[in-house]
Amino acid sequence: MQPIQNQAARDALLEGYRTVRQMTEKLVEPLTPEDQNLQSMDDASPAKWHRAHTTWFFETFLLQPHQPAYCVFDEHFNYLFNSYYEAIGERHPRPERGILSRPTAETVTQYRRYVDAAMEELIARIDDAALGQIAPLLALGLAHEQQHQELILTDIKHAFWRNPVSLAYQPAQGFTRDMPPPLDFVSFAGGIVEIGHDGHGFAFDNEGPRHRVLLNPYRIASRPISCGEYLLFMEDGGYSQPELWLSDGWATVQREGWQAPLYWTKDAKKGGWQVFTLNGKRAIDPAEPVCHVSFFEAAAFAAWAGKRLPTEAEWEHAAQSGRCEFRGGFLDRAHPHPRPASAPPGRLQMFGEVWEWTRSGYEPYPGFKPAGGAIGEYNGKFMCSQIVLRGGSCVTPPGHVRASYRNFFPPAARWQFSGIRLAEDV
Amino acid sequence: MQPIQNQAARDALLEGYRTVRQMTEKLVEPLTPEDQNLQSMDDASPAKWHRAHTTWFFETFLLQPHQPAYCVFDEHFNYLFNSYYEAIGERHPRPERGILSRPTAETVTQYRRYVDAAMEELIARIDDAALGQIAPLLALGLAHEQQHQELILTDIKHAFWRNPVSLAYQPAQGFTRDMPPPLDFVSFAGGIVEIGHDGHGFAFDNEGPRHRVLLNPYRIASRPISCGEYLLFMEDGGYSQPELWLSDGWATVQREGWQAPLYWTKDAKKGGWQVFTLNGKRAIDPAEPVCHVSFFEAAAFAAWAGKRLPTEAEWEHAAQSGRCEFRGGFLDRAHPHPRPASAPPGRLQMFGEVWEWTRSGYEPYPGFKPAGGAIGEYNGKFMCSQIVLRGGSCVTPPGHVRASYRNFFPPAARWQFSGIRLAEDV
Amino acid sequence: MQPIQNQAARDALLEGYRTVRQMTEKLVEPLTPEDQNLQSMDDASPAKWHRAHTTWFFETFLLQPHQPAYCVFDEHFNYLFNSYYEAIGERHPRPERGILSRPTAETVTQYRRYVDAAMEELIARIDDAALGQIAPLLALGLAHEQQHQELILTDIKHAFWRNPVSLAYQPAQGFTRDMPPPLDFVSFAGGIVEIGHDGHGFAFDNEGPRHRVLLNPYRIASRPISCGEYLLFMEDGGYSQPELWLSDGWATVQREGWQAPLYWTKDAKKGGWQVFTLNGKRAIDPAEPVCHVSFFEAAAFAAWAGKRLPTEAEWEHAAQSGRCEFRGGFLDRAHPHPRPASAPPGRLQMFGEVWEWTRSGYEPYPGFKPAGGAIGEYNGKFMCSQIVLRGGSCVTPPGHVRASYRNFFPPAARWQFSGIRLAEDV
Amino acid sequence: MQPIQNQAARDALLEGYRTVRQMTEKLVEPLTPEDQNLQSMDDASPAKWHRAHTTWFFETFLLQPHQPAYCVFDEHFNYLFNSYYEAIGERHPRPERGILSRPTAETVTQYRRYVDAAMEELIARIDDAALGQIAPLLALGLAHEQQHQELILTDIKHAFWRNPVSLAYQPAQGFTRDMPPPLDFVSFAGGIVEIGHDGHGFAFDNEGPRHRVLLNPYRIASRPISCGEYLLFMEDGGYSQPELWLSDGWATVQREGWQAPLYWTKDAKKGGWQVFTLNGKRAIDPAEPVCHVSFFEAAAFAAWAGKRLPTEAEWEHAAQSGRCEFRGGFLDRAHPHPRPASAPPGRLQMFGEVWEWTRSGYEPYPGFKPAGGAIGEYNGKFMCSQIVLRGGSCVTPPGHVRASYRNFFPPAARWQFSGIRLAEDV
Repeated sequence: MQPIQNQAARDALLEGYRTVRQMTEKLVEPLTPEDQNLQSMDDASPAKWHRAHTTWFFETFLLQPHQPAYCVFDEHFNYLFNSYYEAIGERHPRPERGILSRPTAETVTQYRRYVDAAMEELIARIDDAALGQIAPLLALGLAHEQQHQELILTDIKHAFWRNPVSLAYQPAQGFTRDMPPPLDFVSFAGGIVEIGHDGHGFAFDNEGPRHRVLLNPYRIASRPISCGEYLLFMEDGGYSQPELWLSDGWATVQREGWQAPLYWTKDAKKGGWQVFTLNGKRAIDPAEPVCHVSFFEAAAFAAWAGKRLPTEAEWEHAAQSGRCEFRGGFLDRAHPHPRPASAPPGRLQMFGEVWEWTRSGYEPYPGFKPAGGAIGEYNGKFMCSQIVLRGGSCVTPPGHVRASYRNFFPPAARWQFSGIRLAEDV
Repeated sequence: MQPIQNQAARDALLEGYRTVRQMTEKLVEPLTPEDQNLQSMDDASPAKWHRAHTTWFFETFLLQPHQPAYCVFDEHFNYLFNSYYEAIGERHPRPERGILSRPTAETVTQYRRYVDAAMEELIARIDDAALGQIAPLLALGLAHEQQHQELILTDIKHAFWRNPVSLAYQPAQGFTRDMPPPLDFVSFAGGIVEIGHDGHGFAFDNEGPRHRVLLNPYRIASRPISCGEYLLFMEDGGYSQPELWLSDGWATVQREGWQAPLYWTKDAKKGGWQVFTLNGKRAIDPAEPVCHVSFFEAAAFAAWAGKRLPTEAEWEHAAQSGRCEFRGGFLDRAHPHPRPASAPPGRLQMFGEVWEWTRSGYEPYPGFKPAGGAIGEYNGKFMCSQIVLRGGSCVTPPGHVRASYRNFFPPAARWQFSGIRLAEDV
Repeated sequence: MQPIQNQAARDALLEGYRTVRQMTEKLVEPLTPEDQNLQSMDDASPAKWHRAHTTWFFETFLLQPHQPAYCVFDEHFNYLFNSYYEAIGERHPRPERGILSRPTAETVTQYRRYVDAAMEELIARIDDAALGQIAPLLALGLAHEQQHQELILTDIKHAFWRNPVSLAYQPAQGFTRDMPPPLDFVSFAGGIVEIGHDGHGFAFDNEGPRHRVLLNPYRIASRPISCGEYLLFMEDGGYSQPELWLSDGWATVQREGWQAPLYWTKDAKKGGWQVFTLNGKRAIDPAEPVCHVSFFEAAAFAAWAGKRLPTEAEWEHAAQSGRCEFRGGFLDRAHPHPRPASAPPGRLQMFGEVWEWTRSGYEPYPGFKPAGGAIGEYNGKFMCSQIVLRGGSCVTPPGHVRASYRNFFPPAARWQFSGIRLAEDV
Repeated sequence: MQPIQNQAARDALLEGYRTVRQMTEKLVEPLTPEDQNLQSMDDASPAKWHRAHTTWFFETFLLQPHQPAYCVFDEHFNYLFNSYYEAIGERHPRPERGILSRPTAETVTQYRRYVDAAMEELIARIDDAALGQIAPLLALGLAHEQQHQELILTDIKHAFWRNPVSLAYQPAQGFTRDMPPPLDFVSFAGGIVEIGHDGHGFAFDNEGPRHRVLLNPYRIASRPISCGEYLLFMEDGGYSQPELWLSDGWATVQREGWQAPLYWTKDAKKGGWQVFTLNGKRAIDPAEPVCHVSFFEAAAFAAWAGKRLPTEAEWEHAAQSGRCEFRGGFLDRAHPHPRPASAPPGRLQMFGEVWEWTRSGYEPYPGFKPAGGAIGEYNGKFMCSQIVLRGGSCVTPPGHVRASYRNFFPPAARWQFSGIRLAEDV
């Protein structure tokens, strides 16, 4: 680690810290204390918990080891707000986070302020060498908080959805109903290519090491699949044809009674499909990317379309290429929902709007070694039974993702803003 | 129904209404909005829900039919806050009450004020004949609200218990640790006796008709079993001897790992038993009545003691007799926990402190007919797989119970303040 | 206990033993070894298990204590074939009985022969005083085996039902389709009456002590409800009206999707209702008693009919009266299904064909004390959350039931031959 | 497809058919009819079902399309014995296979004879061109039956294990207790290598297409991990250290209470570990390969050892190399359990004894396309949430596996003979 001898660099760290931390608080502004306590399923967490857990991260990994005089805000919080770090000790069971009415949202606000003051003090006064040493942890803590910002929105969306009285996180937004833009396929020759993070700037450990892979020639779609295209799959009996589905997928369709993406419902009066968004319920826009589909649905759609999903190496290779000039939108608090996006012929739109399921299981890259200690639990231990998604979504904070960024969820998960990009062999 | 022609009687109704309604609001004063939203198990409900549901009762059964100009506060509330009245339409599933972050606690307060204003207007201005007609419904609504007052405390106790950080509803109270007072048995000759409500004053439909039953001679304990006596049962291996238990009870002990009453834990340092109360965790007082035991535990204790539980007819007969002069305590907001109680030799203490499990399944009395309409769903449809409890507890509002009052819970339920009274054949 | 000094009495015991034991073996003649191993639900047991368990009873309670030279057939059998006697030691979990491919059906046959030889030797040679002493246990063992004979048939019926290829225990039998015979109600004046076993002849402990009860005047139906009458309830939307059902019953209807009695299905071609019997699937006969209904369905039917179910005291009182001259049929191996039955005006048909749900929970009679030791576990420990049925069915061995006989099952159980008798207040 | 014009080739097909089909019957010789009906968990199937299902395959895919006069043995069997071919129609639910007491084992024997006679007739008389056409299907049917031969043994092992009385499939075999042979690591340089089936001889569709992959230099263990080595992991607290485990693996350890491989138990008297084998229970041999471990245990062991599991490409590359000269044992009916195996320094023993978990999720090879029609459901639809195993085991029929053979099971599966091979980066 290099010492940080530059006041401007130090100021930038401070500014970065403040920006990310304030964004979290802005995201929960529309929520009541009761809203912040909701846990609508085991996979989701209360907004209050996200706010406290991200704060606990700074307290545990930055303040306690590096700020000698630091006094923990509340000794119970290590038990309550540790998410999964076994090395840090016992922790409160995940499915019971919703039972924690105390600490209240107000107390969590105080906790955040207390830790923020200590962190700002730490960043401002720690010596140059030590600052250089903790800078990577600071970056990790902020990237981690950005991940939870996205989860705050996906989790509250799910909780509001379960309230029989239709709720909205933000006021309704005007929208149009258009035909999907053209869908092209862009060709790549393959061969030996490099993927994985190259070490410049922040990345999670699972993005490396950068390494060579051998790709066959392939073609990849210029944009994600739209709602209009997905409706054609539904109309053609996509949810009723077992031959389109992976075996586990078909079992899930049967067991859960899936007939459409999550958050889609039939309008009781007019009969058309409606979608529940963070801006309330409204009609489907055929032009916008379909989202809240599982890997199973993505794979079934691809089979129906006579295509396949890209591997993560293909995706990353294309995203690094000169063909990818057009990025979709990232987090916009007033309108957290994907918008129609496209690219001119021969060009790719590959980031933002929706996470894209790949055909790749989440496995370690060749030579991957987790970091030592509790931080090493961050990613490696989840490398089983999960599928890689790429690209970021309309609720991912701007600047958070990279071409090498590997998101991952189980194949049946639908509550993230997850969509479909097609590929095929040449 | 008699018309109510007396202003004093009208004033008394108004006063009664205000008293009960205000007590509910006092009970939730120590609770944050987040606390009020908690549902810690399917059987329990959020405090906010209890507040709204009891209000919905007045809106639905009093205001809508009898106040022509009344406009409902929110049309969704009929769906959200109907508890189990099938005749009133669809309702929100019970296990999902905790997901309702909206309406907020604040909105529910507004709802209560809105309905209270309309109810006070109704009581003040309705004509004498109509007031006579609605008086029984008004009494029912208030008795119903008192039942929910008790549940607000038992439900929040369970929710706080599940928070790993020890919470208290009220500040700790001093307490002593005494030996149990003497336990006597009082004899009754039996014969043909009358039980059931005699029609004077308010009663729930399940308390009637009053009818004759034939009792064998019996003896009944002068007070409930104390913690000290229960500890002897525990020390003697009570939870390890299947021959003491009903078959379903033993299966429950094995499945749930029961070793003590609910809310009892071993002190990690000193090794003694502690009890979680609404005033926080503290040592056991051997003199106070044991509570939060299931019917299964009550029956096993009785078997161990060489006695049995009383039938509900025996209990009621004894409670109506001249031997029962001493009543235990009812709801005291500052100290919602049973206190030691006893009676002089030959006398009985039979009300208050803890509900007492009888040996009687909850079945209709001879000639019982539920009322017509939705109100008729109040009690009769639960007459299966439940056990009758008698007497009221330390969280039952004063004046709520009678000798003929029939409470009922499934045999494995422990989150009520339920204790043990013994009986035996002569 | 009196000594048995009479050779004829001794011969009668021997003959009684042989008759019951041989009947069990006749009942399994139509079953293959694979059939005998089936366990189709936790509540049911394999036929092979029933054969071995009843044999274990004689080995454990008669041979081991009373035949000094007796050597157990296989020391593992005490673990495998103990049903629920905690005092006798650990036992194999009930839901896993179907996993016991060994001992094979053939080995169980050898076990039965081995025990039968020892038992016949015991009965033939034990001295008079000792024979008098064991005679009640012998009678208990045989009554116990008869109970399991009934279960062999109800359990294999359920197992065959789950095979998608329609199986039959016995060849089809001709049957007619008639209108139900007239349904009358017979009046009784009530008052103080006696119920419970009077001590003459064998009875289970739960049938006593004989005791007085006070009955209101009542009327009771002359015969069980027929399929034709039950169809009217179904046609009238009986399964869709929550107000007819107990709360637990309605929840069960919803959860299980009940639309008709167990074993009823719609004929795929003609649309009429069919019933699966031990003689195969065939059309409904409107005249025959409806069976395989739960207590919940019985109670809902009664509510629909404007009547109620009888209490067990009413049932027994009527069954003991001079009005009850007509008995229905008991076990007939060739045709194990209820037949239409009736009685002339003013008379009752009260035994056989179908067990009849009463309105009474299964509770101890006043003064009931279970026997000491393992035998005492026979009945008392099940006195919770069960409903009393009376009268015996078409698969109950002849001679097995009495007016005081108390059968019991949980309220949702449907796999017994359980039907409906109505009653009402006068 | 080439016509088969050679009588010797035709005879070889006939001989191959007979050999495989007879082996199945030999495997069930030690089983009673009741044994053959057991289903001890959802993942396992009764031996009888395996015998019928493999027969149904020939009836459905060979006889019905290619033998015009063929008359199906029983029309219900298509429903009962279809495993998962959605295109062939509805099928009996997998978890309920154990309820099928009929058809009996004897009837299934007749079914096999009936189909064998028709198949032998078909092979003997079909014209050369058609024989050439069906030969691949015939090979598929036989390879399929060999897979089920392995499952017959693993499934009955699990069922016998659940019987509290210790059963054995075959008599006990003498065994020694030795130290593990030396464990070496053999190095490979990596680079671009080819894996996948090359098209000569039979292979399943999932083994192709053959394709190039880029491998880093790696080293791979000379033999599977032994019980002795695994005991060291256990002694060192392997099952108690979350940091060694994948997150799902640790959750499984906690939930299932895993402390050792499946089938290991502590000797109640002497305290040492014992293992349940198809030859009965006996002490552990430290020298023999550990088996019945899950992927989670394999990965945790590798982490503990400071190594990793090989990717499937590494495994296949090593197995194709000249270093792999030593094969372990395959199915031996008298002793179906892995034996110690090793190879001289610098050489590999890579087949037989135990299946070896790789670090690779089961995904399609580049360019993989499932066959059309029902046969296409054979493999592709399972390519999700499963882990690839390689090499074959002591219950895999000889000749069944190849270097390119891809077996797959979910990561928590333990009832297969699955073991551990280590690898590491150079």
